[in-house]
Amino acid sequence: MDIGGLVTSAGINISICVVLSSLYSVLRKQPSNASVYFTRRFISEPIQHDDPFGLHRFVPSAGWLMRAWQATDEELLEAGGVDAVVFMRIVVFSLRIFIIATVVCICLVLPVNYYGRDMEHKSFRVEPYDVFTIGNVEEGSKMLWAHCFAMYVISFSAFVLLYLEYKSITKMRLAHITGSHLNPSHFTILVRGVPWSQDDSYSKSVESFFSTYYPDTYVAHQMVYRPSTFHKLKKDAKKMYLMLRPTETEYVRDDKPCYLCGGSAHTFKVIHKDNNRSQTRIDDLHPTQIEKECPAAFVFFKNRYAAVIAAQVLQSWNPMLWVTQLAPEPHDVYWSNLGIPYKQVWVRKIASLLCALALVFVFCFPVAFVQGLTQEDVLKSWFPQFRRLLENEFVNRVVTGYLPSVILIVLMYTVPPIMMMLSKMEGNVSRSERKRSACIKVLNFTIWNVFFVNVLSGSFIQQMSVFSKLQELPFQLAKQMPDQAAFFTTYVLSSGWASLASELIQLFSLTWNFFRKFILRSKEEPTNIALNFPHHTEIPRMLLFGLLGFTFAIHAPLILPFLLIYFALAFLVYRNQILHVYVTKYESAGLFWPVVHNTTIFSLVLTQVIAVAVFALKEAPIASGFTIPLIVFSLLFNEYCRKRFSQVFKRSPAQVLIEMDRRDEQMGREEGFYNQLRSAYCQLAYITKDLTISEDFSRVGTNRQRKDDESCQDKDDSSPKSGIHHIELQ
Amino acid sequence: MDIGGLVTSAGINISICVVLSSLYSVLRKQPSNASVYFTRRFISEPIQHDDPFGLHRFVPSAGWLMRAWQATDEELLEAGGVDAVVFMRIVVFSLRIFIIATVVCICLVLPVNYYGRDMEHKSFRVEPYDVFTIGNVEEGSKMLWAHCFAMYVISFSAFVLLYLEYKSITKMRLAHITGSHLNPSHFTILVRGVPWSQDDSYSKSVESFFSTYYPDTYVAHQMVYRPSTFHKLKKDAKKMYLMLRPTETEYVRDDKPCYLCGGSAHTFKVIHKDNNRSQTRIDDLHPTQIEKECPAAFVFFKNRYAAVIAAQVLQSWNPMLWVTQLAPEPHDVYWSNLGIPYKQVWVRKIASLLCALALVFVFCFPVAFVQGLTQEDVLKSWFPQFRRLLENEFVNRVVTGYLPSVILIVLMYTVPPIMMMLSKMEGNVSRSERKRSACIKVLNFTIWNVFFVNVLSGSFIQQMSVFSKLQELPFQLAKQMPDQAAFFTTYVLSSGWASLASELIQLFSLTWNFFRKFILRSKEEPTNIALNFPHHTEIPRMLLFGLLGFTFAIHAPLILPFLLIYFALAFLVYRNQILHVYVTKYESAGLFWPVVHNTTIFSLVLTQVIAVAVFALKEAPIASGFTIPLIVFSLLFNEYCRKRFSQVFKRSPAQVLIEMDRRDEQMGREEGFYNQLRSAYCQLAYITKDLTISEDFSRVGTNRQRKDDESCQDKDDSSPKSGIHHIELQ
Repeated sequence: MDIGGLVTSAGINISICVVLSSLYSVLRKQPSNASVYFTRRFISEPIQHDDPFGLHRFVPSAGWLMRAWQATDEELLEAGGVDAVVFMRIVVFSLRIFIIATVVCICLVLPVNYYGRDMEHKSFRVEPYDVFTIGNVEEGSKMLWAHCFAMYVISFSAFVLLYLEYKSITKMRLAHITGSHLNPSHFTILVRGVPWSQDDSYSKSVESFFSTYYPDTYVAHQMVYRPSTFHKLKKDAKKMYLMLRPTETEYVRDDKPCYLCGGSAHTFKVIHKDNNRSQTRIDDLHPTQIEKECPAAFVFFKNRYAAVIAAQVLQSWNPMLWVTQLAPEPHDVYWSNLGIPYKQVWVRKIASLLCALALVFVFCFPVAFVQGLTQEDVLKSWFPQFRRLLENEFVNRVVTGYLPSVILIVLMYTVPPIMMMLSKMEGNVSRSERKRSACIKVLNFTIWNVFFVNVLSGSFIQQMSVFSKLQELPFQLAKQMPDQAAFFTTYVLSSGWASLASELIQLFSLTWNFFRKFILRSKEEPTNIALNFPHHTEIPRMLLFGLLGFTFAIHAPLILPFLLIYFALAFLVYRNQILHVYVTKYESAGLFWPVVHNTTIFSLVLTQVIAVAVFALKEAPIASGFTIPLIVFSLLFNEYCRKRFSQVFKRSPAQVLIEMDRRDEQMGREEGFYNQLRSAYCQLAYITKDLTISEDFSRVGTNRQRKDDESCQDKDDSSPKSGIHHIELQ
Repeated sequence: MDIGGLVTSAGINISICVVLSSLYSVLRKQPSNASVYFTRRFISEPIQHDDPFGLHRFVPSAGWLMRAWQATDEELLEAGGVDAVVFMRIVVFSLRIFIIATVVCICLVLPVNYYGRDMEHKSFRVEPYDVFTIGNVEEGSKMLWAHCFAMYVISFSAFVLLYLEYKSITKMRLAHITGSHLNPSHFTILVRGVPWSQDDSYSKSVESFFSTYYPDTYVAHQMVYRPSTFHKLKKDAKKMYLMLRPTETEYVRDDKPCYLCGGSAHTFKVIHKDNNRSQTRIDDLHPTQIEKECPAAFVFFKNRYAAVIAAQVLQSWNPMLWVTQLAPEPHDVYWSNLGIPYKQVWVRKIASLLCALALVFVFCFPVAFVQGLTQEDVLKSWFPQFRRLLENEFVNRVVTGYLPSVILIVLMYTVPPIMMMLSKMEGNVSRSERKRSACIKVLNFTIWNVFFVNVLSGSFIQQMSVFSKLQELPFQLAKQMPDQAAFFTTYVLSSGWASLASELIQLFSLTWNFFRKFILRSKEEPTNIALNFPHHTEIPRMLLFGLLGFTFAIHAPLILPFLLIYFALAFLVYRNQILHVYVTKYESAGLFWPVVHNTTIFSLVLTQVIAVAVFALKEAPIASGFTIPLIVFSLLFNEYCRKRFSQVFKRSPAQVLIEMDRRDEQMGREEGFYNQLRSAYCQLAYITKDLTISEDFSRVGTNRQRKDDESCQDKDDSSPKSGIHHIELQ
């Protein structure tokens, strides 16, 4: 591809971006789209403000960009929680490091590459892309020191920025812990692997174990029941609902205690106005179910420190029994996985890992096909009937420069749901953990299938053979990278820019909203529209672009400006989306950062290894040797960060929790707190709630329900009031 | 090498073994050697029983073998502690699995190998060794199923035996914990990374931290002082001693409290009978030193559970500060490493790892040289002047069959001390941990330098190139192993059998004892003769023989009977040595077993991978494919064992400790126990003690000292009395 091709591709993408963002600025002004573009506000106030019909509603504007730019970190934290801020930190980190990289590489490396060989340069428009890559530098050139210097500057800037980010995110995580006052998850542990006893039920075992070994701090526990028990309940409730629907009924919230946990149960007492057709009540459903316990329970403690001790200490001499961990937050609990026997979990983990690996290999075939499309002669041999069409310059440019990326992107859309399913199968007990696991899987998949497979190209067998000769891998990469630089530049343009535009426009929600309102003519407001931020797709994408940026920085610096624009747009678009669209139901409080950090270190080390190989291939052994200490330093830096920060992301520090407990004691804990604690983890409450949402169960109850939802978004609010409020509403 | 060569080699070794063990049975009867062969008893009763001079003292006998055979596991546990029993379990496990392997392979695999090819067999004596290896089986032979079957039998027997061993050793470890009543290490944690504060000393910081966060259970703490402080003390004490020596002095044990810790300090008050030449007292040395604290301390708690909580919970939000772990037992503390700042430890770990790796590579050169010696033509080209000598059949057999092993063994003797030094450099805080770390290093070294380097032979560069093409490694191993079988068989004979004989005879101690008694004519009994069991040399040796056994079982089953004899002899010899020679001053309570388990799994998987390659090379793809599930099963089995057992080797289970605490409370804890606890970890006490031993400091104190030493061997004794006694004597 020449520069003209690149300009064509950039042109297409810029137009798409401009059109879509103008469209967005118009669409968001339409009141009927409030549920799509202002989901957060819409959920709290579903009443539509009727905007007077006027011309201004159809004029594109850029005000949203300004508002996204002006939002403070506090607003983001309030709107999206720690995880959203962590995501924005990735973008900010990438922006900063690639500003440095762009300045260094465009000013220093690009001229060296361009004038690296004695040749007559053609007109800029038809200059092939290769001229701007390291491939154009002569062997044994002294100018390779420029690349080595750029490598050092980029690496050390990355170290400094990474360190600062890790430090600030660690602080943010601690602030999240200390800020979330009376968070039920701080007082609760999840115990799995309760041993089976012939004489006692699981519940009795749990009670006797914890009242024996934690007599001073154990408060109560809440068993987990088999999903089937609740499915039965749900089915019965649905049946009842269907029986009742035609009649005018009134649901009165019944705050009598739940049969299973003693907490408030959110059951709805049904008062029939017209007839007494059905006498079935949820009350009648419970007695036979109560036996169906799982060997897992939530155990509540008097204070946070007691809970953290019970969670971190090895309980039994058999590590497969009485396995404890701090409980996830109530909204974060993934109930259907709690019933999985703990003994199965390790097998499930291995199985899901193998499945993910299998998927990676299966995917090599379509990716290899896509790679074929980028090469004109391969394409002609595959589709001889289109040979003439391909001779048209524009078609050729679109097909070789743009189509492959589009196909790759479409293919990639199928991966996150599969990885999410695998992570569910793994037996994760919280939604955030499941998402994190899916994120790691998607990330590995992306790095392998987008970066390595495309760079190494060739057939699957050829790719595999490269990996079996590991010492040749850097040389292979070094040889092939300049050739693939053009492909990855268009990939940044298509996958990056266009994906941001489609993120903005929310095509799927928009279409569904349109279909619902104008085809189905539904007048009801939807209740289950709240989307969680898709960390498991967006973080891998960001990190992939980071990897591309690092690895191509000195090889083909022409990619950097496009990347920089991408990150700048991402900064605005994602801030806008976090503020207006996504609803944070649960979060991991920054657990994504260690993944980001490790991946960035991996990218840096890979870049450095490739640089060593490139310098060796270019017959600059001193520059090559000079880069090796950088690799060692990167690994040492990573090890230091691991020692210094990563523990805080795995375990809660005792010091912090004890101080929170003391503050509580001084202020005096609210009465009835422990009862609220028990009801916070009531399985039935969650199942009935799911039912309410998914079945459009109660019109009367909707407002109340929405308030519940809103209150759960407020969980980062550090005022003690809101925390209690939150628990009361459970 | 032919069978004749093997017989020569076996003959030499059998004669050496018989001669040395007869010599041993005579030497051990000489009262003057009691300090060499009955060290354990000698330390407790150093008075020599004068045995009447008679002929029976010079007649070899086998009584010791019987006594070693008849000793029970309880006796071993009492004599050598859990670690000694764990070592014997390795021998027993190896014996059991190789009895099974020998039966299967000699009855089934050996005939298949021998008659694997249509050929005329020569006389047995000149039959080359190769005829008995898998190399003799024809390609595509159906008889390879015998090898596959043998592989399955060996693997599954190993799984069952490994599982049972792991289970029983876990139980033994728990019994050790529950049995050692009032063990000071259960009540103590070691805290490192105490933060520096301008206002307070480290001691004040520790006190305020633990009295703030553990107000109910914190008892006291004991700072660690800079080694220089104590070296100064030691030097002063030595100076004083030298000044006092010519005069007749009397040392009276002075039980007043230690200045640093408040505990009993083992200082000796010097009472001058003749003159008052020196008025220097240890008392005068302390005031200036007390400032020189390290940022590390032992912290004592009221009960075991409190200590285990403080040890297992993450204390601070900065994981490099307030790093806690359960304290090693007082005798196990490696004082000079306690002063190392915690922030350095990770760098030291990496540095020592790199040094160990470098050693492995440096050692490749002498090993390659040794390999050259086994090949007659290489030898002749290296030493043309000895060409004629090498044509002598006996010389040839000795040089090619025996000498290489001897050189290898001698070279290998230099490795453990180096690895021990590296492990010391690493910053391990306990002697047992240092030994375990050295054991792992020696093990990796041995497996690489004895097994891989010898099998792959060739030059260093050739070996490295094999590793860079990882998928070819199994095939390379599979091809080369039959050729190297003869070498390894003689290695078992020479390194194995002869090392057992030399272990028995304790050549170094014996010579030193002889030199001391008959050349120096010293009448004093030595006090520092107690040897610890050298786990870091013996465990790697056992595991190497295990690896050889597994990998050669189906390739060259002729090695198995020799191995079996080796393990049977080892069983008797090591039992004898544990009962009579080695003194257990400290122990890791079974921490060696996970290392053994992992290495055995590694050996099994390596065997299976090689088998897959062998079957593939022999054109038996179905047998090859049939072996792959075995690899998967081995890895799953290992993962299961890791989940099921390994945690207990890392952390103490709360349940067990709480129950011990309750039992204590019921029985009422002895008064003054906490004071004893403090003095148990008094640095000065240990330094003065070292002084006493190393300088032959006090003749008067010797008996007392010996009793101390003995009391520390009794720490496995489960009677509550002895534990307290032990502490009191500190």
